[in-house]
Amino acid sequence: MKRDTVEVGIIGLGTVGKGTVKVLLGNRDILRERIGFDMNLRKIADLDIIKDRGIELPHGILTTNAEEILHDPDIDIVVELIGGIHPAKEYVLTAVRNGKHVVTANKALLAVEGTEIFGEAEREGVEIGFEASVGGGIPIIKILREGLVANRILNIYGIINGTSNYILSRMTEEGIEFTDALKEAQRLGYAEADPTFDIEGIDSAHKLTILASLAYNIPFAYSEVYKEGISKITPQDIEFALELGYKIKLLAIAKAGNSAVELRVHPTMVPKDNLISKVESVFNAIYVEGDAVGEALFYGKGAGDMPTGSAIVSDIVDIARNIRRNSGRRAPVLKTQSSPLRIKGMEEVVCMYYFRFSAMDSPGVLSKIAGILGDNNISIASVIQKGRRVGGAVPLVVLTHMAKERNVMEAIKSIDTLPIVAEKTHFIRVEGKGE
Amino acid sequence: MKRDTVEVGIIGLGTVGKGTVKVLLGNRDILRERIGFDMNLRKIADLDIIKDRGIELPHGILTTNAEEILHDPDIDIVVELIGGIHPAKEYVLTAVRNGKHVVTANKALLAVEGTEIFGEAEREGVEIGFEASVGGGIPIIKILREGLVANRILNIYGIINGTSNYILSRMTEEGIEFTDALKEAQRLGYAEADPTFDIEGIDSAHKLTILASLAYNIPFAYSEVYKEGISKITPQDIEFALELGYKIKLLAIAKAGNSAVELRVHPTMVPKDNLISKVESVFNAIYVEGDAVGEALFYGKGAGDMPTGSAIVSDIVDIARNIRRNSGRRAPVLKTQSSPLRIKGMEEVVCMYYFRFSAMDSPGVLSKIAGILGDNNISIASVIQKGRRVGGAVPLVVLTHMAKERNVMEAIKSIDTLPIVAEKTHFIRVEGKGE
Repeated sequence: MKRDTVEVGIIGLGTVGKGTVKVLLGNRDILRERIGFDMNLRKIADLDIIKDRGIELPHGILTTNAEEILHDPDIDIVVELIGGIHPAKEYVLTAVRNGKHVVTANKALLAVEGTEIFGEAEREGVEIGFEASVGGGIPIIKILREGLVANRILNIYGIINGTSNYILSRMTEEGIEFTDALKEAQRLGYAEADPTFDIEGIDSAHKLTILASLAYNIPFAYSEVYKEGISKITPQDIEFALELGYKIKLLAIAKAGNSAVELRVHPTMVPKDNLISKVESVFNAIYVEGDAVGEALFYGKGAGDMPTGSAIVSDIVDIARNIRRNSGRRAPVLKTQSSPLRIKGMEEVVCMYYFRFSAMDSPGVLSKIAGILGDNNISIASVIQKGRRVGGAVPLVVLTHMAKERNVMEAIKSIDTLPIVAEKTHFIRVEGKGE
Repeated sequence: MKRDTVEVGIIGLGTVGKGTVKVLLGNRDILRERIGFDMNLRKIADLDIIKDRGIELPHGILTTNAEEILHDPDIDIVVELIGGIHPAKEYVLTAVRNGKHVVTANKALLAVEGTEIFGEAEREGVEIGFEASVGGGIPIIKILREGLVANRILNIYGIINGTSNYILSRMTEEGIEFTDALKEAQRLGYAEADPTFDIEGIDSAHKLTILASLAYNIPFAYSEVYKEGISKITPQDIEFALELGYKIKLLAIAKAGNSAVELRVHPTMVPKDNLISKVESVFNAIYVEGDAVGEALFYGKGAGDMPTGSAIVSDIVDIARNIRRNSGRRAPVLKTQSSPLRIKGMEEVVCMYYFRFSAMDSPGVLSKIAGILGDNNISIASVIQKGRRVGGAVPLVVLTHMAKERNVMEAIKSIDTLPIVAEKTHFIRVEGKGE
């Protein structure tokens, strides 16, 4: 039976919920014109239904009880926007088991529980839309899954955490310390009171997990993603990087070889002429290299009520079109069991490295350090040594050729025990041809 | 009846045809894994089936007779890759009338004959895939039609002709003349022997026509797109633009107001810090501003066998998925009859302008020119006057505030008749906040 409308219920009326409602109601005319039928916002559940959110809602659609949405037989699509693992997971699974399609922006939930959730959706024959889980308004899920479907994905480099990018941009522009940039971001609402997820690479790793599952058909492997945040980056490192022709960005990186894929999130030096180096402030960008398409980059707002609402509503439209045509899933649910690709351990990763040694300004220091690097198969591409201070510690900056992470860790361990070294060595991984 | 495969026929084995075949056959394993069934390349028609194209084809699939594909009852999807209007149009219409879905990269055909072709497809209940018609490997059609479906599209600024962008990039990097950069592009295979379509904005206008139909639901209006090419751009203008903080790019621009939309292709000065100014060489990029998503930019290779093959195969996959699910069109065929938006005449356009006057170096010149500008309601934002040459002509560069094209044309007409003006005035339109 074809109904006249597709019925939507939203759980969670926070920032993203509000944006979704604004897009769905505010652009109802253009949506109807484009898709040929109406999508009706039937119910919204939130713990607080009193607060004035500055949006006008149809009378009587608010409820404090999510169950009213999960068990409403007339609702076709449940939009989960409460975030976190519990009770989001229970809500999503209940909706799925009640035969409802689900749209979610919840990257943590999918990264950690995705295999179970997509498995259940497969069994129940419903769809899970998750465009808003990565890259905010950038339709990167659709791009990877459909637009670039014909490609073997070779590399993904993503700036997919706006908070970190804002902080690094400000540190670069103003030469300020991490803690000051963080405070500024918090004041402007770009960072939360507890910023851990954003600044320690956890949020980026959640999103990378999702991108990698799409790109490489591998199970959701959040726990195997290497994570390193930006809190140890100093203005001094940013300045040395610029001098060497690089910017420092928090990148989420996926790289595929024949039998293994690397998944890692860490501060990365990127040649400053690369387009991704020019992504500033809270913007996101995902660079994708496919065997057919070559290099491509997709840029936009990674967060915010309206951009995320744009992504949520695009998922609702996709599912609604399928419902209206009784066509079932068009792009199959993620099937991630069959891949022969294993996930590389971090110690196997090979890249270039930037080292900032804190060395005593005495003869033979460079030769000692270079010796240890050489012993560990690490060859030096360039050296910056400046700010001679008699008897004190001075920074010695070294850029390497390609080296193996395991060897690098070994070398640093040895170097940090040298009496001529005053502080623990700082290092930053380097991607892209900088020469 | 569900068959095991979806059968594909390709007409035209040129560069794009070859890329399509390479992607379809070379990535068959990954495509099967992703979509769950096989797509079989059944026949390829080309006038020359002798030439060695360096690709290995299944035995016996080549034919010189396109009719063999158009009338093969087992072929589900016809891929038209011969380009031009005739006989491409007849092939496409025959395929459609025989109940076949069509995939095409033919922007000229769609821009000029799109309304008829999509009308016929609608009547016959088949799909037309045209991802490869704009932006090569960038999935901009899918992005606009599905990813950003929830947005009112406010502005589109596209670098969608790689040849022109290459020429302008080289002129900017090397300070060389247009004709030298064009020759270089021809030598490298980036420009054709007859480069008219690319350098005079015709190709960009074809593509803009398609983007505008998608974004604004308006009929294909190629003849109403304003077109101006890059052949009159000089190294001197590029240098003055840089001095003022701008780069010169050939932009395809669509801007929507409440009742009208502007569609124009012309050399444009863009603030050099804008991301789109950093798109160099043969790369394409499309900047889109939507009311929900805000600013977004999509970047990649706009041409070439493999990137375009990537787009063609993504269309084949989309259609094949629908065939397998007997679901009919998921995203409806373009319906472009109902729009209340009219297309603005160029004379109504309002933007900023760069003028380079060739003025005699005598007292009162600036006041005379400024007077005429003022009489035409054009106010001056900044002036560069240099290179004093006694008695001779010197360049006088003026950047305006927002002004109306009609007034600008009137002013130039008056100024060019002044005895103190030695040459016809050069002007370039300016977009984006440069201050």
